[in-house]
Amino acid sequence: MKNFMEPESVALIGISRKTGPESYNIMENMINCGYSGKIFPVNPNADEILGKKAFSNVTEIGEKIDLAVITTPRDNTVSVIQDCAAAGIKSVIIINQGFSDADNRGRELQEEIVRIAKRNGIRIIGPNTIGIVNNFAGFMASFFSLKKRKTPVGLICQSGIFFVANESLCETVGKAVDLGNTCDIGFYEVLDYFWRDPEIKIIAIHVEGLEQGRKFLDLARKVVKEKPVVVFKTGSSEIGAEASKTHTGTIAGDYQIFKAALKQQGITFLDSGNQIKCAIKVLLNLPSMKGNRIAILTYSGAAGIMAVDVMESYGLILSSLSPETIDRVKALSPDWMPIGNPVDIWPATMTKGVDKVYPRALKAVLDDPEVDGVICISYAYLSEPLKRITEEKTEKPVVAWLYGDKNGEVAAEMEEKARILVYPDIETAVLALSLLKDRQSIIGKK
Amino acid sequence: MKNFMEPESVALIGISRKTGPESYNIMENMINCGYSGKIFPVNPNADEILGKKAFSNVTEIGEKIDLAVITTPRDNTVSVIQDCAAAGIKSVIIINQGFSDADNRGRELQEEIVRIAKRNGIRIIGPNTIGIVNNFAGFMASFFSLKKRKTPVGLICQSGIFFVANESLCETVGKAVDLGNTCDIGFYEVLDYFWRDPEIKIIAIHVEGLEQGRKFLDLARKVVKEKPVVVFKTGSSEIGAEASKTHTGTIAGDYQIFKAALKQQGITFLDSGNQIKCAIKVLLNLPSMKGNRIAILTYSGAAGIMAVDVMESYGLILSSLSPETIDRVKALSPDWMPIGNPVDIWPATMTKGVDKVYPRALKAVLDDPEVDGVICISYAYLSEPLKRITEEKTEKPVVAWLYGDKNGEVAAEMEEKARILVYPDIETAVLALSLLKDRQSIIGKK
Repeated sequence: MKNFMEPESVALIGISRKTGPESYNIMENMINCGYSGKIFPVNPNADEILGKKAFSNVTEIGEKIDLAVITTPRDNTVSVIQDCAAAGIKSVIIINQGFSDADNRGRELQEEIVRIAKRNGIRIIGPNTIGIVNNFAGFMASFFSLKKRKTPVGLICQSGIFFVANESLCETVGKAVDLGNTCDIGFYEVLDYFWRDPEIKIIAIHVEGLEQGRKFLDLARKVVKEKPVVVFKTGSSEIGAEASKTHTGTIAGDYQIFKAALKQQGITFLDSGNQIKCAIKVLLNLPSMKGNRIAILTYSGAAGIMAVDVMESYGLILSSLSPETIDRVKALSPDWMPIGNPVDIWPATMTKGVDKVYPRALKAVLDDPEVDGVICISYAYLSEPLKRITEEKTEKPVVAWLYGDKNGEVAAEMEEKARILVYPDIETAVLALSLLKDRQSIIGKK
Repeated sequence: MKNFMEPESVALIGISRKTGPESYNIMENMINCGYSGKIFPVNPNADEILGKKAFSNVTEIGEKIDLAVITTPRDNTVSVIQDCAAAGIKSVIIINQGFSDADNRGRELQEEIVRIAKRNGIRIIGPNTIGIVNNFAGFMASFFSLKKRKTPVGLICQSGIFFVANESLCETVGKAVDLGNTCDIGFYEVLDYFWRDPEIKIIAIHVEGLEQGRKFLDLARKVVKEKPVVVFKTGSSEIGAEASKTHTGTIAGDYQIFKAALKQQGITFLDSGNQIKCAIKVLLNLPSMKGNRIAILTYSGAAGIMAVDVMESYGLILSSLSPETIDRVKALSPDWMPIGNPVDIWPATMTKGVDKVYPRALKAVLDDPEVDGVICISYAYLSEPLKRITEEKTEKPVVAWLYGDKNGEVAAEMEEKARILVYPDIETAVLALSLLKDRQSIIGKK
């Protein structure tokens, strides 16, 4: 995998002379991301591409090449792989579509390519991939750019959507591999690589069909003790699974069996693409949760009930707050106010002011031995005190749901200043805590 | 209801002299929203509040008063209601908490208030309410401000969260009533009012416990033929229902029975608070959908599969595209590309460019008699052509899921220019179409 993730020299076979927007030029992206290794463009119709001498064939380069990235049309790919073999190249990414994802001819071409590669000790990622990104090494072989952040998240996927939808779908990632049709290199090898990679703390996987299932599961069981592994699978429905055949050409398999097998290994298995971002964020930033007893602090009674309604299906329960905690909150509230859990702090806030009430109430529930984690529900404009708390409190996770105007901006500020993660809705906030509870049960077994 | 929604004169009993941020001063909000009627502050400790003469008792005003808004502590409320009766006031909002939402003493006070009101022909909204807003009449009696948009959405709720979380939870609303503990006026009367209100096109309801159930359901069955009624209920879980008792003091009842009864009347019943915004937006802006056969256009194969996976549980199916449609998309795509539904237009886009492909492919599926609605999945930066289409096409709904950088901004532009509604994730986009299908089955029965 090192040749793929940190190559010192790259041949770009079939690279276009077109650059700029909508040209999807890998060489341009590679240069823009600050790649410091050698780049050899291969294009028989060009003398020079982006200031670098172009070769008409990869065999003419005459230098050691760690990685070849092939973007030629499918019918040329067999001969290009033969050229790579002749040039002594051992690592190849085949970007283009039109192989096992397409028709019979495509499947035959892919099989032929694999035969040649095996015979010559060549390893392949793809075909039908958007490429690879390694922000830690300043390397990118992708026809779409990813944000250049060194987030300790390793992404393995079978679709470019997880690259281009990056922050809207799966949180910023530091290293990413799109495996495409997985004609050779598959999930097992990249998982193993990210497991041993000290720069990666969490591994996110989008899978359509899994080859080497047993091997992968055995490895995953070891990996999750050290690093959370988050998996989302497309093709969960019968028709969706059918559609997978013309997407990556893999067999999706029975979803429920797949899910059960992965969960058994301690993998964080997600049923919705929306949840990937939440899962990565919370597993990366908050401590695991020792139990499932939750305290809810809220300005709104109805919002507290919304949280309770959702918690049930995620295996979380309302903590029975200790008498000391109840007394501490009662002292802040009007006499007539019955204090329970959810802890409605609105009447207290109306009489004593937000600055006094929220920090004290939060401290009270965090001090309570009956509480494992806390959900704060707050109007964005009244969230200032939340920024000043939990600095020193790290052993119990706190998540928040902020509503009202500018909740996005306030959330960003809050996450920067406090050890609270903020979610735009209560379902996601509850999901986040439930993942920390699951995580504890994995680490506990260590 | 007219006295509550468009009063010509309002007495504010117990109104505070404190103004500015965190004072929650209803009079200040009322003035700021541009209310043009008469305002009479009642506060024995003030001579003047916000430039208006203050009275020590409502009985001293000596003018006709359409509405009294009471914010005195709970123990004073009984005598204040007696004063209102003496002053000939027939409509009252009681803002404060501490009644049936609190303890036995609170319940007794509330019962006493209701007795006095009944005897004197006084109607009450509340107690325990954030108030009322009517942006069409420039009137607001609420201690939190709502956005002042004249959206044709009428909101009835039992919690201030739907006011203050407005745009993050339920889309902008033009008129809103928080019923609080519903000691007198309940859902039936406000539903009836919004039904007859020509300024309101859709009615959104948050309910915790429903009194007058049979009457409400009979009315709702008539209302939904003309205006969609969207309902979200808190207290769906057993513990959540228990918590409702100390929130609004109402009995939440069995959730599944409640849900079934409402759905049977043709009400759009939502299981998640997250869905309210989506439901209002789509029912307000798109035509109902004649059938459940969906075409999916996508740049990403995996994203198309994600859509299919979600559709199944919402009762939508993949359309079997007609041969003409397939041919029209084939003509745009490379030879090897198998065309089906989801329609993967990435290979076509790579060869022919985004401007040519997306509009033609969308036109092809919209022309197809086998298609009832369309989901467009698109990278935000490649969505420009989507803005230029469906201007003239209104009979089939089109929704989009945009991903990638700045998808929020591009979505806002797109919704302004094209007749496409944009959602930040595929689940919500699919839900939106399913609501339009449900809507058709209600209108069809008319």
